[in-house]
Amino acid sequence: MGWYTLSEPFEQLLSQRTSAMQRNPIREILRAVGQPGMISLAGGIPAPESFPIEELYRINEIVLDRYGAAALQYDLTEGFAPFREALAGYLAKKGIDAKPEQLLVFNGSQSVLDTLGKVLISPGDVIALESPSYLGAISAFSSYQPEYVSIETDDDGIIPKSLERVLDQHAIKFVYLVTTFQNPTGSTLSLQRRHEIAAIVKERNALIVEDDPYSDLRYRGEALPPLQSFAPENTVYASTLSKIFAPGLRLGFCLAPPLISEWLYTAKQGADLHSNTYAQALATEYICGGFIERQVPKIIELYRPRQEAMLAAMEQHFPPEYRWTKPEGGMFIWVEGPPGVDAEQVYWKAVERKVAFVPGKFFYINPDDGLATMRLNFTRADEATIERAIAVLGKVLQEFGSD
Amino acid sequence: MGWYTLSEPFEQLLSQRTSAMQRNPIREILRAVGQPGMISLAGGIPAPESFPIEELYRINEIVLDRYGAAALQYDLTEGFAPFREALAGYLAKKGIDAKPEQLLVFNGSQSVLDTLGKVLISPGDVIALESPSYLGAISAFSSYQPEYVSIETDDDGIIPKSLERVLDQHAIKFVYLVTTFQNPTGSTLSLQRRHEIAAIVKERNALIVEDDPYSDLRYRGEALPPLQSFAPENTVYASTLSKIFAPGLRLGFCLAPPLISEWLYTAKQGADLHSNTYAQALATEYICGGFIERQVPKIIELYRPRQEAMLAAMEQHFPPEYRWTKPEGGMFIWVEGPPGVDAEQVYWKAVERKVAFVPGKFFYINPDDGLATMRLNFTRADEATIERAIAVLGKVLQEFGSD
Repeated sequence: MGWYTLSEPFEQLLSQRTSAMQRNPIREILRAVGQPGMISLAGGIPAPESFPIEELYRINEIVLDRYGAAALQYDLTEGFAPFREALAGYLAKKGIDAKPEQLLVFNGSQSVLDTLGKVLISPGDVIALESPSYLGAISAFSSYQPEYVSIETDDDGIIPKSLERVLDQHAIKFVYLVTTFQNPTGSTLSLQRRHEIAAIVKERNALIVEDDPYSDLRYRGEALPPLQSFAPENTVYASTLSKIFAPGLRLGFCLAPPLISEWLYTAKQGADLHSNTYAQALATEYICGGFIERQVPKIIELYRPRQEAMLAAMEQHFPPEYRWTKPEGGMFIWVEGPPGVDAEQVYWKAVERKVAFVPGKFFYINPDDGLATMRLNFTRADEATIERAIAVLGKVLQEFGSD
Repeated sequence: MGWYTLSEPFEQLLSQRTSAMQRNPIREILRAVGQPGMISLAGGIPAPESFPIEELYRINEIVLDRYGAAALQYDLTEGFAPFREALAGYLAKKGIDAKPEQLLVFNGSQSVLDTLGKVLISPGDVIALESPSYLGAISAFSSYQPEYVSIETDDDGIIPKSLERVLDQHAIKFVYLVTTFQNPTGSTLSLQRRHEIAAIVKERNALIVEDDPYSDLRYRGEALPPLQSFAPENTVYASTLSKIFAPGLRLGFCLAPPLISEWLYTAKQGADLHSNTYAQALATEYICGGFIERQVPKIIELYRPRQEAMLAAMEQHFPPEYRWTKPEGGMFIWVEGPPGVDAEQVYWKAVERKVAFVPGKFFYINPDDGLATMRLNFTRADEATIERAIAVLGKVLQEFGSD
């Protein structure tokens, strides 16, 4: 769809909040990615071959046999009871202590973020974000017209001193963090910092929103307990099955402190009554039928060599003045070029040669902070394609260096 | 979940708009309905035996064979392309001229209403509603803090003179109408009035939101073209497959004027990225595989005798001073008792005898306007059960009359 023109009828009917809404620039950039022959390191999309398609023939039968009409009927706003039961078991293995009745199911974790915005943000309220931060969260919150402040980050996630400063200088509604294999940087909040940050938010009675879509995609190293487990009373924990089952099923969920949970429930009831019952039933059987235990290792075995191939090719082809993260999991590698590089120019040059990625500035509240940065995704293409794409990208970067 | 207490932590974090949000009182009343042995004429829920469960075994296979990973992947915000194609064909048969690319798919029509509220309503804006009106719409709009004005209705839907008066006396953002087999009254806007109302809104450049979930459930008489077809440039048409396929799949959609469509798209992208791809693929095959043509007549043959049984039993058991609608379709019959009757008292008496319905006052902006009214649903129980329930309810009404 094209943009509207100013002469369009009904413009006078638009709400004030539309002035704060904007389209996700990544999704707009992805339109260029649709060109034939393009290799996309943009997007944050699972590989189609990671989906348990063969298993779904069987899971559908199990669901129709076991639940019948109940899987097709109107259901509770808070979620399908067997799914919340299954989720509680899944979360227990991550170190999260949740009763099924404390969990709320949403249409993807994006809808958790939107609904949080609805119940927490009045126009002008201040939200604290990692710098850089997940774009989808900004786009969910922005329609409620908040202001943003940034928390400094390094390879170990947000810097506790910076969080303290932000909390002491502003009335912060909540702090939004992707704690493990962050989007866009791939970085993970260290165990030491999880302890420190839990202490900081408890002391100030502050609220954390911990978004955790990637932690199951670990290729090396040891799993860390979620920040939620160190500060359960101060954390809204949000996650999704999009990276370990199927994003098209839109299965997000959250665990929140009681008052916030009550309001999320009320807001969701007005917004969409309840989430897709059938998809929740499929996910219940995916988890309880043992499918998940077989599928997640397969997904890891699919992505690990792709990440290794990308890191090795970058070592070989990227100019020495570039540095990048080496995450132990997730879907992204984050690149920082030397001062003066404009990654959007690099993007257009690379797209001409049929390689796409996301210029990193889009992930910053102040885009000038990230002009020389790039986000590379390694889950979508196979190893040989990744090697070819990185060789092309390395050449483009070399040319920029020699301008 | 119980209500929160005032001493709850984080209360200071809630947005201003939570003060305008409320839980749907019908859904709260339905909790009493869960008691064992209760016959429910409350709710607006399809009969489980109306779902094409046997067919879904086959439709799932077709979807996995035909679309594979595409049915499980992230997809376009506006909707799954084959589904929008199928919907355009479905709508053409209703007299709606829509190109697939003009349609937007949402998580149930409730989410259409919520998103419309988001892009159109600033706090204090005025929305015009039928009196009585659909409660779910009020609950979707209210979180955006509008004011409401009522339009008078009779057995043929809203009264054109009343609409004119409301549009001339207020700056109305939009007029929300359920035009066919309305919830709660069952009444249908007559053809003559569709013409008149189209002329009124065109003359004033006003915007109609036409919600049309029930028009396929017609048991007698001739189908009417949607109001949208008389005033396409002034109408947001919203509908759902919940009543003719399965509500648990949350398949709502809308056709809106271009500018509003653009903003609905932008708002939806921030709110939930896109709707469930798999459910859209199921619905595509349900429509294109010819299943819908066989299923809808079966649903009609299931509901028609239930409605006839209810109307006949009311004739036999209800006191003569009560009057009620005799809709040609839909899911509800609307009852008006004589002045002085308090239908909520009737409700509690009836619940004691294991019959539940919805007191009609909940559907009014000013509940005092509908104290003596009741909404009866006839789709959930079979004929014998309906006859028994109406006999009990008739007895309760007789007792109230003789107080």
